[in-house]
Amino acid sequence: MPFADTLRQVVDQTEGALAGLLMDFEGIAVETYVKDRNTFDIDVVGAEFSVIVKSVRRAIDSLEAGSTREVSVQAEKIVTLIRVINEDYFVAVTMKPQGNLGKGRFLLRVAVPKFLEDLA
Amino acid sequence: MPFADTLRQVVDQTEGALAGLLMDFEGIAVETYVKDRNTFDIDVVGAEFSVIVKSVRRAIDSLEAGSTREVSVQAEKIVTLIRVINEDYFVAVTMKPQGNLGKGRFLLRVAVPKFLEDLA
Repeated sequence: MPFADTLRQVVDQTEGALAGLLMDFEGIAVETYVKDRNTFDIDVVGAEFSVIVKSVRRAIDSLEAGSTREVSVQAEKIVTLIRVINEDYFVAVTMKPQGNLGKGRFLLRVAVPKFLEDLA
Repeated sequence: MPFADTLRQVVDQTEGALAGLLMDFEGIAVETYVKDRNTFDIDVVGAEFSVIVKSVRRAIDSLEAGSTREVSVQAEKIVTLIRVINEDYFVAVTMKPQGNLGKGRFLLRVAVPKFLEDLA
Protein backbone atom coordinates (compact mmCIF):
# COMPACT_ATOMS: atom_id res chain seq x y z
CA MET A 1 0.00 0.00 0.00
CA PRO A 2 2.00 2.98 -1.18
CA PHE A 3 -0.62 5.41 0.22
CA ALA A 4 -0.11 3.98 3.66
CA ASP A 5 3.67 4.39 3.52
CA THR A 6 3.50 8.00 2.37
CA LEU A 7 0.89 8.88 4.99
CA ARG A 8 2.81 7.16 7.77
CA GLN A 9 6.00 8.99 6.82
CA VAL A 10 4.31 12.39 6.99
CA VAL A 11 2.81 11.65 10.41
CA ASP A 12 5.91 10.00 11.88
CA GLN A 13 8.25 12.74 10.69
CA THR A 14 6.10 15.59 12.00
CA GLU A 15 6.83 16.19 15.68
CA GLY A 16 3.59 16.16 17.67
CA ALA A 17 1.47 14.64 14.88
CA LEU A 18 -1.23 12.23 16.08
CA ALA A 19 -2.86 10.87 12.94
CA GLY A 20 -3.20 11.15 9.18
CA LEU A 21 -5.98 10.54 6.74
CA LEU A 22 -6.34 10.25 2.96
CA MET A 23 -9.97 10.76 2.00
CA ASP A 24 -12.20 11.47 -0.95
CA PHE A 25 -14.58 14.43 -0.98
CA GLU A 26 -17.54 12.13 -0.38
CA GLY A 27 -16.07 11.51 3.07
CA ILE A 28 -14.84 7.97 2.41
CA ALA A 29 -11.41 7.23 3.85
CA VAL A 30 -8.89 5.66 1.45
CA GLU A 31 -6.24 5.31 4.13
CA THR A 32 -5.78 6.24 7.77
CA TYR A 33 -2.82 6.09 10.10
CA VAL A 34 -2.96 6.69 13.85
CA LYS A 35 0.16 6.78 16.01
CA ASP A 36 -1.67 5.73 19.15
CA ARG A 37 -5.15 4.34 18.46
CA ASN A 38 -6.28 4.92 22.05
CA THR A 39 -5.90 8.67 21.93
CA PHE A 40 -7.84 9.36 18.81
CA ASP A 41 -10.85 8.50 16.70
CA ILE A 42 -9.62 9.23 13.19
CA ASP A 43 -12.95 8.27 11.58
CA VAL A 44 -14.74 11.07 13.42
CA VAL A 45 -12.05 13.48 12.27
CA GLY A 46 -12.39 12.38 8.68
CA ALA A 47 -16.15 12.67 8.43
CA GLU A 48 -16.11 16.12 9.96
CA PHE A 49 -13.26 17.39 7.87
CA SER A 50 -14.78 16.30 4.59
CA VAL A 51 -17.68 18.65 5.42
CA ILE A 52 -15.24 21.48 6.12
CA VAL A 53 -13.26 20.92 2.96
CA LYS A 54 -16.45 20.86 0.89
CA SER A 55 -17.62 24.17 2.32
CA VAL A 56 -14.17 25.64 1.80
CA ARG A 57 -14.18 24.56 -1.84
CA ARG A 58 -17.60 26.14 -2.39
CA ALA A 59 -16.30 29.37 -0.86
CA ILE A 60 -13.16 29.36 -2.96
CA ASP A 61 -15.19 28.67 -6.11
CA SER A 62 -17.57 31.54 -5.45
CA LEU A 63 -14.64 33.86 -4.81
CA GLU A 64 -12.98 32.79 -8.05
CA ALA A 65 -9.85 32.44 -5.97
CA GLY A 66 -8.47 29.50 -7.93
CA SER A 67 -8.27 26.01 -6.51
CA THR A 68 -8.05 25.32 -2.78
CA ARG A 69 -4.61 24.25 -1.67
CA GLU A 70 -4.50 24.09 2.08
CA VAL A 71 -6.73 24.56 5.09
CA SER A 72 -5.51 24.65 8.67
CA VAL A 73 -7.77 24.54 11.70
CA GLN A 74 -6.39 25.43 15.11
CA ALA A 75 -8.38 24.53 18.18
CA GLU A 76 -7.39 24.57 21.83
CA LYS A 77 -6.29 20.94 21.96
CA ILE A 78 -5.80 19.96 18.33
CA VAL A 79 -4.41 21.43 15.12
CA THR A 80 -5.41 19.93 11.76
CA LEU A 81 -3.74 20.54 8.43
CA ILE A 82 -5.67 19.69 5.27
CA ARG A 83 -4.04 19.59 1.85
CA VAL A 84 -6.13 19.20 -1.29
CA ILE A 85 -4.59 16.60 -3.62
CA ASN A 86 -6.89 16.92 -6.64
CA GLU A 87 -10.59 17.23 -7.47
CA ASP A 88 -11.40 14.02 -5.66
CA TYR A 89 -9.04 13.60 -2.71
CA PHE A 90 -7.49 15.41 0.24
CA VAL A 91 -5.02 14.47 2.92
CA ALA A 92 -5.20 15.64 6.55
CA VAL A 93 -2.79 15.46 9.47
CA THR A 94 -3.86 16.16 13.03
CA MET A 95 -1.35 17.21 15.66
CA LYS A 96 -1.00 18.63 19.15
CA PRO A 97 -1.00 22.43 19.33
CA GLN A 98 2.69 22.41 20.22
CA GLY A 99 3.44 20.15 17.21
CA ASN A 100 5.69 21.24 14.34
CA LEU A 101 3.10 22.88 12.09
CA GLY A 102 5.68 24.18 9.62
CA LYS A 103 7.21 20.76 9.11
CA GLY A 104 3.78 19.18 8.74
CA ARG A 105 2.87 21.70 6.05
CA PHE A 106 6.12 21.09 4.22
CA LEU A 107 5.83 17.29 4.36
CA LEU A 108 2.20 17.37 3.20
CA ARG A 109 3.08 19.63 0.31
CA VAL A 110 5.91 17.41 -0.94
CA ALA A 111 3.80 14.28 -0.41
CA VAL A 112 1.11 15.47 -2.86
CA PRO A 113 2.95 14.30 -6.02
CA LYS A 114 3.46 10.86 -4.43
CA PHE A 115 -0.23 10.56 -3.59
CA LEU A 116 -1.13 11.73 -7.09
CA GLU A 117 1.08 9.04 -8.59
CA ASP A 118 -0.46 6.32 -6.41
CA LEU A 119 -4.01 7.50 -7.07
CA ALA A 120 -3.59 7.58 -10.85
CA MET B 1 -16.52 53.09 15.47
CA PRO B 2 -13.73 51.38 17.40
CA PHE B 3 -14.31 48.09 15.49
CA ALA B 4 -13.54 49.86 12.26
CA ASP B 5 -10.26 51.29 13.55
CA THR B 6 -9.00 47.97 14.87
CA LEU B 7 -9.98 46.15 11.67
CA ARG B 8 -8.38 48.79 9.46
CA GLN B 9 -5.15 48.65 11.45
CA VAL B 10 -4.87 44.88 11.07
CA VAL B 11 -5.44 45.07 7.30
CA ASP B 12 -3.24 48.12 6.69
CA GLN B 13 -0.34 46.75 8.74
CA THR B 14 -0.37 43.32 7.06
CA GLU B 15 1.62 43.43 3.84
CA GLY B 16 -0.48 42.07 0.98
CA ALA B 17 -3.79 42.17 2.88
CA LEU B 18 -6.83 43.06 0.75
CA ALA B 19 -9.75 43.24 3.15
CA GLY B 20 -11.01 42.55 6.65
CA LEU B 21 -14.34 41.54 8.10
CA LEU B 22 -15.90 41.35 11.56
CA MET B 23 -18.93 39.08 11.43
CA ASP B 24 -21.31 37.14 13.65
CA PHE B 25 -21.87 33.42 13.19
CA GLU B 26 -25.24 34.07 11.56
CA GLY B 27 -23.29 35.59 8.68
CA ILE B 28 -24.17 39.21 9.39
CA ALA B 29 -21.24 41.61 8.98
CA VAL B 30 -20.63 44.00 11.87
CA GLU B 31 -17.82 45.79 10.10
CA THR B 32 -15.92 45.49 6.84
CA TYR B 33 -12.85 47.22 5.50
CA VAL B 34 -11.58 46.91 1.94
CA LYS B 35 -8.33 48.50 0.80
CA ASP B 36 -9.42 48.79 -2.82
CA ARG B 37 -13.17 48.27 -3.30
CA ASN B 38 -12.77 47.51 -7.01
CA THR B 39 -10.68 44.40 -6.49
CA PHE B 40 -12.89 42.62 -4.04
CA ASP B 41 -16.42 41.79 -3.00
CA ILE B 42 -16.10 41.48 0.76
CA ASP B 43 -19.77 40.57 1.24
CA VAL B 44 -19.36 37.41 -0.82
CA VAL B 45 -16.32 36.51 1.26
CA GLY B 46 -18.21 37.02 4.49
CA ALA B 47 -21.24 34.95 3.63
CA GLU B 48 -19.08 32.07 2.45
CA PHE B 49 -16.74 32.17 5.39
CA SER B 50 -19.49 32.14 7.97
CA VAL B 51 -20.51 28.75 6.51
CA ILE B 52 -16.95 27.50 6.78
CA VAL B 53 -16.51 28.69 10.34
CA LYS B 54 -19.78 27.05 11.36
CA SER B 55 -18.75 23.70 9.90
CA VAL B 56 -15.34 24.04 11.54
CA ARG B 57 -16.95 24.70 14.92
CA ARG B 58 -19.17 21.63 14.55
CA ALA B 59 -16.11 19.54 13.74
CA ILE B 60 -14.14 20.90 16.67
CA ASP B 61 -17.07 20.30 19.01
CA SER B 62 -17.47 16.71 17.89
CA LEU B 63 -13.74 16.13 18.34
CA GLU B 64 -13.86 17.61 21.83
CA ALA B 65 -10.80 19.56 20.75
CA GLY B 66 -11.65 22.64 22.79
CA SER B 67 -12.73 25.91 21.24
CA THR B 68 -11.78 26.88 17.70
CA ARG B 69 -9.13 29.56 17.58
CA GLU B 70 -8.01 30.04 14.03
CA VAL B 71 -8.72 28.80 10.54
CA SER B 72 -6.61 29.59 7.51
CA VAL B 73 -7.62 28.84 3.94
CA GLN B 74 -5.06 28.99 1.17
CA ALA B 75 -6.21 29.06 -2.41
CA GLU B 76 -4.30 29.77 -5.59
CA LYS B 77 -5.08 33.48 -5.67
CA ILE B 78 -6.23 34.30 -2.13
CA VAL B 79 -5.33 33.43 1.45
CA THR B 80 -7.88 34.00 4.22
CA LEU B 81 -7.19 34.01 7.95
CA ILE B 82 -10.13 33.58 10.30
CA ARG B 83 -9.85 34.19 14.03
CA VAL B 84 -12.69 33.28 16.37
CA ILE B 85 -13.36 36.11 18.84
CA ASN B 86 -16.01 34.49 21.05
CA GLU B 87 -19.16 32.38 20.78
CA ASP B 88 -20.83 34.94 18.56
CA TYR B 89 -18.20 36.67 16.42
CA PHE B 90 -15.19 36.06 14.22
CA VAL B 91 -12.80 38.28 12.32
CA ALA B 92 -11.29 37.46 8.91
CA VAL B 93 -8.53 38.98 6.84
CA THR B 94 -8.01 38.14 3.18
CA MET B 95 -4.66 38.64 1.50
CA LYS B 96 -2.65 37.84 -1.60
CA PRO B 97 -0.77 34.51 -1.48
CA GLN B 98 2.52 36.39 -1.23
CA GLY B 99 1.17 38.48 1.68
CA ASN B 100 2.68 38.37 5.16
CA LEU B 101 0.67 35.53 6.68
CA GLY B 102 2.68 35.43 9.89
CA LYS B 103 2.17 39.11 10.56
CA GLY B 104 -1.52 38.84 9.77
CA ARG B 105 -1.88 35.98 12.26
CA PHE B 106 -0.03 37.93 14.92
CA LEU B 107 -2.04 41.12 14.39
CA LEU B 108 -5.34 39.23 14.42
CA ARG B 109 -4.40 37.44 17.63
CA VAL B 110 -3.49 40.64 19.48
CA ALA B 111 -6.58 42.41 18.11
CA VAL B 112 -8.97 39.89 19.72
CA PRO B 113 -8.94 41.56 23.20
CA LYS B 114 -9.70 44.92 21.55
CA PHE B 115 -12.64 43.47 19.63
CA LEU B 116 -13.87 41.75 22.79
CA GLU B 117 -13.77 45.04 24.65
CA ASP B 118 -15.71 46.85 21.92
CA LEU B 119 -18.26 44.06 21.57
CA ALA B 120 -19.02 43.89 25.31
